[in-house]
Amino acid sequence: MSLKNYIRDIQGFPKEGILFKDITPLLINADASKNCIKILVSSLKDKKIDKVIGVESRGFLFGMLIAQELNVGFVPVRKPNKLPYKTISATYDLEYGTDTLEIHIDAIQKGDRVVIHDDVLATGGTIKAVCELVERLGGEIVQCNFIMELSFLNGREKVKEQEIFAAIKY
Amino acid sequence: MSLKNYIRDIQGFPKEGILFKDITPLLINADASKNCIKILVSSLKDKKIDKVIGVESRGFLFGMLIAQELNVGFVPVRKPNKLPYKTISATYDLEYGTDTLEIHIDAIQKGDRVVIHDDVLATGGTIKAVCELVERLGGEIVQCNFIMELSFLNGREKVKEQEIFAAIKY
Repeated sequence: MSLKNYIRDIQGFPKEGILFKDITPLLINADASKNCIKILVSSLKDKKIDKVIGVESRGFLFGMLIAQELNVGFVPVRKPNKLPYKTISATYDLEYGTDTLEIHIDAIQKGDRVVIHDDVLATGGTIKAVCELVERLGGEIVQCNFIMELSFLNGREKVKEQEIFAAIKY
Repeated sequence: MSLKNYIRDIQGFPKEGILFKDITPLLINADASKNCIKILVSSLKDKKIDKVIGVESRGFLFGMLIAQELNVGFVPVRKPNKLPYKTISATYDLEYGTDTLEIHIDAIQKGDRVVIHDDVLATGGTIKAVCELVERLGGEIVQCNFIMELSFLNGREKVKEQEIFAAIKY
């Protein structure tokens, strides 16, 4: 089963000139989703993990499943003013403007071995900001883990020091 | 294990006078999360289900897990302009103003037996809008399913014709 068969190309979303990779056909197929999770979890075999972070909101989908498969806690990283308890935040550049992500200050303990999951590695701005949040709380990043990587956008360059794994590569 | 032990009260979030029920202590405890999923899935025993819908974004967390446990497809309902393919939308009233939710038009087939999952049943506006989307696509709603229900807000009144299940009740 090639997972690429479950990714749909949408031309011109969210704006003209962009070819968007839609994961909803993957989500709607239980076996394809199971296979994707299996691949992501296999990549973490024999690594000690304490927490899995999922990045709002598509990173919540498989992030929580990976955490449950590994039998470890799940931690959400969210957009501003969504997390109700005390947070720290990191701001990063987008093509136009900036964006901010937050994490609860009690979500990561010093020395926690952490996997960060998001759906797509594109330009790498988001994952870099999440790595910064984890490191500021004293966590150790074991792997940054994605459903897919858009290699031509060179996102890896922004987080060179991290181990990157993607179930699907473009 | 009482799941209520894993829900944290946050006074004054998102604004003064509101006591917010924070699910992050539940998410960070793998056993408590597993127990919550078990309770939600048990409530669906012997019911034929074709799809599980999760409502953005906290409904993605357990929604995808329930779908995988039942071995059926997952469908996201999202905020406007997030879903890349053709959508239909439903708008509903908030305390101040309105909000809109969207679903892909090919996400539900006529006659699909659907479970709708969200984290909290509060005033019921969100779940009513999601039910409307599912019914417009010809889906049959088997259950609306929540981590917790805030009974004092009478959300059930807005979806009287639906079966409602919540793992935790306040």
